[in-house]
Amino acid sequence: MSNTKAYNVAVVGATGAVGQKILETLNVKNFPIKQLKLLSSARSAGTKIKFKEDTIVVEEAQSESFDGIDIAFFSAGGSVSKKFVPEAVKRGAVVVDNTSAYRMDEDVPLIVPEVNEKDIKTHKGIIANPNCSTIQMVTTLKPIQEKFGLSRVIVSTYQAVSGAGAEAVEELRDQSQAFLNGERLESELLPVKGEKNHYPIAFNALPQIDVFQDNGYTFEEMKMINETKKILHEQELSVAATCVRLPFFTSHAESIYLEVDHETSVSAIQETLKNAPGIVLQDNPSEQEYPTPLDAAGKEDVFVGRVRKDLDQSNGYHMWVVSDNLLKGAAWNSVQIAESLIKNNWL
Amino acid sequence: MSNTKAYNVAVVGATGAVGQKILETLNVKNFPIKQLKLLSSARSAGTKIKFKEDTIVVEEAQSESFDGIDIAFFSAGGSVSKKFVPEAVKRGAVVVDNTSAYRMDEDVPLIVPEVNEKDIKTHKGIIANPNCSTIQMVTTLKPIQEKFGLSRVIVSTYQAVSGAGAEAVEELRDQSQAFLNGERLESELLPVKGEKNHYPIAFNALPQIDVFQDNGYTFEEMKMINETKKILHEQELSVAATCVRLPFFTSHAESIYLEVDHETSVSAIQETLKNAPGIVLQDNPSEQEYPTPLDAAGKEDVFVGRVRKDLDQSNGYHMWVVSDNLLKGAAWNSVQIAESLIKNNWL
Repeated sequence: MSNTKAYNVAVVGATGAVGQKILETLNVKNFPIKQLKLLSSARSAGTKIKFKEDTIVVEEAQSESFDGIDIAFFSAGGSVSKKFVPEAVKRGAVVVDNTSAYRMDEDVPLIVPEVNEKDIKTHKGIIANPNCSTIQMVTTLKPIQEKFGLSRVIVSTYQAVSGAGAEAVEELRDQSQAFLNGERLESELLPVKGEKNHYPIAFNALPQIDVFQDNGYTFEEMKMINETKKILHEQELSVAATCVRLPFFTSHAESIYLEVDHETSVSAIQETLKNAPGIVLQDNPSEQEYPTPLDAAGKEDVFVGRVRKDLDQSNGYHMWVVSDNLLKGAAWNSVQIAESLIKNNWL
Repeated sequence: MSNTKAYNVAVVGATGAVGQKILETLNVKNFPIKQLKLLSSARSAGTKIKFKEDTIVVEEAQSESFDGIDIAFFSAGGSVSKKFVPEAVKRGAVVVDNTSAYRMDEDVPLIVPEVNEKDIKTHKGIIANPNCSTIQMVTTLKPIQEKFGLSRVIVSTYQAVSGAGAEAVEELRDQSQAFLNGERLESELLPVKGEKNHYPIAFNALPQIDVFQDNGYTFEEMKMINETKKILHEQELSVAATCVRLPFFTSHAESIYLEVDHETSVSAIQETLKNAPGIVLQDNPSEQEYPTPLDAAGKEDVFVGRVRKDLDQSNGYHMWVVSDNLLKGAAWNSVQIAESLIKNNWL
């Protein structure tokens, strides 16, 4: 970034899977940091974390922790955000919140910079980072919506365990080894931490991400449905989602069916996606080119392949979208928001 | 079975993943066998296989192998079926073919006994067993079609490696262990044996099952589309499919969106599924009850859960369908067809 000013930055949830990726991204992007404060629960306080030349001791988050902070990244769960985000804002910080706590609040912009950067301007101290599975989907839907109109989306997801945190990553690793050893699988966390029942994820698929709502959809599915409408500014858009947790570590994949308003073609959609920000088109069936979770891991972009026309619906198209759920789905999108705040003088 | 007559049975592809399951199923079901002949390619000939009290030596399949055979199960790949099925039929055998070689032939019935058993009667010596991912889907669609009418289906699949044969099972096992050891992954088979490129399946997802067609769909996807229309006797049905290979060993799962013709409700659809043959309803979100691949493995039924209404389309519903791809998806369905041939005197 060319701006010479530097900022006091706090990362809340610094020891978590997303917090770690936010620190990596701030480092790689040379984010203009004057002072970096790492915050966590009492449990993780005292942990030492290296950032560039410094070793920083993680402190327990308190209301006073946010005195003097310009930008605070929150990724320590909804209840921590509910408690401390208002305290941070009261003390003058602008918060980029990675939890679902404020996403659907009317006066909180829900941002994917490639899609609705201008909405950041209206913030009142809180900017919400969307759900990981929403971010990669709207990044690909936006250019299609702009060019051809969009009336309908049906998505089935293929989601990595790292979306459920570092403990879920360990659970998949431990269970996989136990399975290969012919041992019994111990399930203590997935599909949802704190739920009554836990099922093996190793060599399995769990059609539950987050808790069930009264309408039979999971909260993850409702997040995708509601957040997509908000980000695309299209409440009338028909969106349906089925979210499934799968035994891989990184990157979510999505099988997306969509219907457009205006007549178009596979090549026109491919061209539109290729020229859109944040998207890499990997779509050449004759060479077996398509994105996979393993390939997308560690990369910032959203990868799209398998664009094809529905065989019955003249305005229907299918595609396969993959992105690193911890980068574009969380850390990178959050840092992009902060970069935009600075670049546009919207702090 | 109560029929006291016994039959000369041949199993072609006896050493393969499906062939082995056919033998297990013939055994478990006490299929009335007079003489059992096990056939294979020259490569596997000589293998000894235990069946009940006997040890049977696998023979290389020849045209003459089918002399005196009443029922022949084929699961040794399309080219073997193309070569030997006509020879078996010429010699008076009725063939239950588990490959895609004859499925779309107009005078070959394509059978899921719970769905279209009566079509068996029209056979001219060959009865085709549908693709594994098709079988479990049409088993659940049929009762819905009958009761409420069916106009549209969009499916995204979550398919086990055993659908690609015993070598693919080994590849997943070897790659998984290598990954956990931090070693490089060797890919020699998946997504498709004999294709130019091979990609890791361990801790990954591959949006390619079988080879690509000119229209951008894979052959697996076209099988689901075309076979579903044939089995349900509804060429006007709109069917779309995205097929994905995933890192688990057994059972395919499917996220299915469907539209019905007549007004109905989630509970009416659940009731219809619960009372339909071959289906077990596992659908209680408040108790986190839904089917998973690991749970369905080794069972004959098709398991359905997560039945819910689309939030925008008044005639749209979603569901999650899981079944053992080697049993109902292959061996059990084949043996059911043979049982029906005998029971109805349709041999």
